[in-house]
Amino acid sequence: MYIKGVNLGNWLVLEKWMSPALFAGTTAEDEYYLPRQLSKEVYEARIQMHRAEYISERDFVTIKSMGMEVIRIPVPYFIFGDREPFIGCIKELDKAFAWAEKYGLQILIDLHTAPMGQNGFDNGGICGVCRWAQCPDEVEFTLTVLERLSERYGDRKGLWGIEVINEPLTEAAWESFDITKRYPAVDPEMAKGTAPISMAFLREFYKKAYARMRAHLAPEKYVVIHDGFDLMAWKDFMQEDEYQNVVLDTHQYLMMAEMDGCPQTVEGYVEYVQTKYAKMIEEMEQYFPVVCGEWCLFNSLACGCDTKGGQSVLNGMEGTAQESFSPEQKKEIYQAVANAQLDAWKKGSGYFYWSYKLLVDTVNEPGWIGWDSWDLGRCVDFGWFPTNR
Amino acid sequence: MYIKGVNLGNWLVLEKWMSPALFAGTTAEDEYYLPRQLSKEVYEARIQMHRAEYISERDFVTIKSMGMEVIRIPVPYFIFGDREPFIGCIKELDKAFAWAEKYGLQILIDLHTAPMGQNGFDNGGICGVCRWAQCPDEVEFTLTVLERLSERYGDRKGLWGIEVINEPLTEAAWESFDITKRYPAVDPEMAKGTAPISMAFLREFYKKAYARMRAHLAPEKYVVIHDGFDLMAWKDFMQEDEYQNVVLDTHQYLMMAEMDGCPQTVEGYVEYVQTKYAKMIEEMEQYFPVVCGEWCLFNSLACGCDTKGGQSVLNGMEGTAQESFSPEQKKEIYQAVANAQLDAWKKGSGYFYWSYKLLVDTVNEPGWIGWDSWDLGRCVDFGWFPTNR
Repeated sequence: MYIKGVNLGNWLVLEKWMSPALFAGTTAEDEYYLPRQLSKEVYEARIQMHRAEYISERDFVTIKSMGMEVIRIPVPYFIFGDREPFIGCIKELDKAFAWAEKYGLQILIDLHTAPMGQNGFDNGGICGVCRWAQCPDEVEFTLTVLERLSERYGDRKGLWGIEVINEPLTEAAWESFDITKRYPAVDPEMAKGTAPISMAFLREFYKKAYARMRAHLAPEKYVVIHDGFDLMAWKDFMQEDEYQNVVLDTHQYLMMAEMDGCPQTVEGYVEYVQTKYAKMIEEMEQYFPVVCGEWCLFNSLACGCDTKGGQSVLNGMEGTAQESFSPEQKKEIYQAVANAQLDAWKKGSGYFYWSYKLLVDTVNEPGWIGWDSWDLGRCVDFGWFPTNR
Repeated sequence: MYIKGVNLGNWLVLEKWMSPALFAGTTAEDEYYLPRQLSKEVYEARIQMHRAEYISERDFVTIKSMGMEVIRIPVPYFIFGDREPFIGCIKELDKAFAWAEKYGLQILIDLHTAPMGQNGFDNGGICGVCRWAQCPDEVEFTLTVLERLSERYGDRKGLWGIEVINEPLTEAAWESFDITKRYPAVDPEMAKGTAPISMAFLREFYKKAYARMRAHLAPEKYVVIHDGFDLMAWKDFMQEDEYQNVVLDTHQYLMMAEMDGCPQTVEGYVEYVQTKYAKMIEEMEQYFPVVCGEWCLFNSLACGCDTKGGQSVLNGMEGTAQESFSPEQKKEIYQAVANAQLDAWKKGSGYFYWSYKLLVDTVNEPGWIGWDSWDLGRCVDFGWFPTNR
């Protein structure tokens, strides 16, 4: 198996930096606080317009023309519309399945958020809160969401698999992400007790989820588990025959490599990718099909400034005021890191670029130069991303 | 001069069929009635989300990668925000200029609507009302909009030209468009007196507009006049030396050819294009640079049913329930009509495809099969549109 894929980030799970207009006039930094700062009518109008216009049938045609095969679609825990004040989006996912099936694509449904937070990231739905694993009712609710998704789409031709939960933050990465500082909680009371998710809990949760999902999923559909930012920790997990078609998902961003000391040069990136990513994936591929479910070309070198782990103007960073490289030089940098990373993913079973589309304006909004490399559409159109391999 | 271009239809001037979510829950058929059926807050939320998400920097990158050179941007008469209850959009046009200049594109600003209607089409802003030419104050207001646009952008590198007014409906095409039936007016009182625009008025208006625009426009910028659906009527117009860089714009859709009796076969379309479009453009090119400012691949043959001049489910037509041709057959049909039309435009000075993007859902919304051919993005991605010529 080798899968070429892309994420539909920011469509059904919001990220402020990817479409600032949704958050205009509010101080909300995440999806949790957006409906709490807007009237019901305005919230609904913004969400419905965003869902209708951000992604449509034409994007599936484009994704197919890029040579991609599987689309990873992040969905929120409130997808079924049973968690006020959020608005469900199962109809959008239904439409996506019809588009995928028409154009010969498949979908990896990625449960991207959990109530009370599984990582405390903005993209986990609520900044600075990581308490989901401590709330048995919410854990059970999450399992029912996975069950319902499995039941609804389990036999669909357009289903590639379902990912249990995105980026549960375990001890291994807790300190480097520095959640409480980088994503301060709005309500300290709600964040009280925020802590990494234990590997013991996560293993147990994955097993429960597998059993309840597999009951509805056709045997060939994949159950995808995220590595919790600890790729090498899963060698003794789910190796028994009862677990079939389980895929291990690891997310590898160059901005994380930079935090790990990778030099901000083309040679530095390439060597890091070859000696770390490629080696780890090669080793883990003995135990699971391993996909890199999130990655991109973004790096501080091409940005022209040290982003300190991918921090933007939204985090109070300045960014750069003008391009540091000519278009040709940028193309060389991006092609080099693209090829190195694609080589590394080849040691495993595939990849999903993050992300298909984002609305960052590098021209009219100071500080965003370089952030267009998160956008696969732009990477392809600029010739940064090789679609022929 | 030979210009390859595309329209950004439905971005700043709305068309319900191109983004139905904007009009959801209303009975409004045009932009005039939308703010009259929504609360101020919801109207604003929908419009702002649409403008922020429908078109963004990444689309300019895509358009450049398609090999296009000039972008025709329809703008409404209320662009400067001085016509309540509408919301101005000059900031969006400012952004577009910055994007165009960054990526080596130019913009043709197209004043697409006039108060009280210059054609009675839905895309003229108000269905069934064509009285603008009878309202001297509104004619003068329109001239001030053109003046202000010329002043604001007249020296910008990113400006290619400004089109005085889109599709003023003259006697020549009045009957065939059958406005009062096809686009019934909501308010008969307001529509009272609706009538074709006289050629005498239009000539006078174009001359006034030219003088007032040229006062601000750099000499190399184009003033574009639409033919009023009467391409051959302009041989004795603006031929004097005082008129420089005037471009004649004609719109030619195969659905109009069908209404004129063109057989709904590939051979029929190709012959019609060769014997009518190409000949007329070749002749008129002696008098003006002639561009085909709107056209597309859409035709009834590929739709699988007679659309009777491009009428859709929104006009009460049924459309087709399933594809009539295989993807390969569709590609053959579309490539043939694309090449024939591109050959015809070569007799003149260029073209602008209508349109870059639309949100028609051919999979989940019955009756829309075939309507994706209005969407240049999809035409390119499907391989229907040859970007190499």
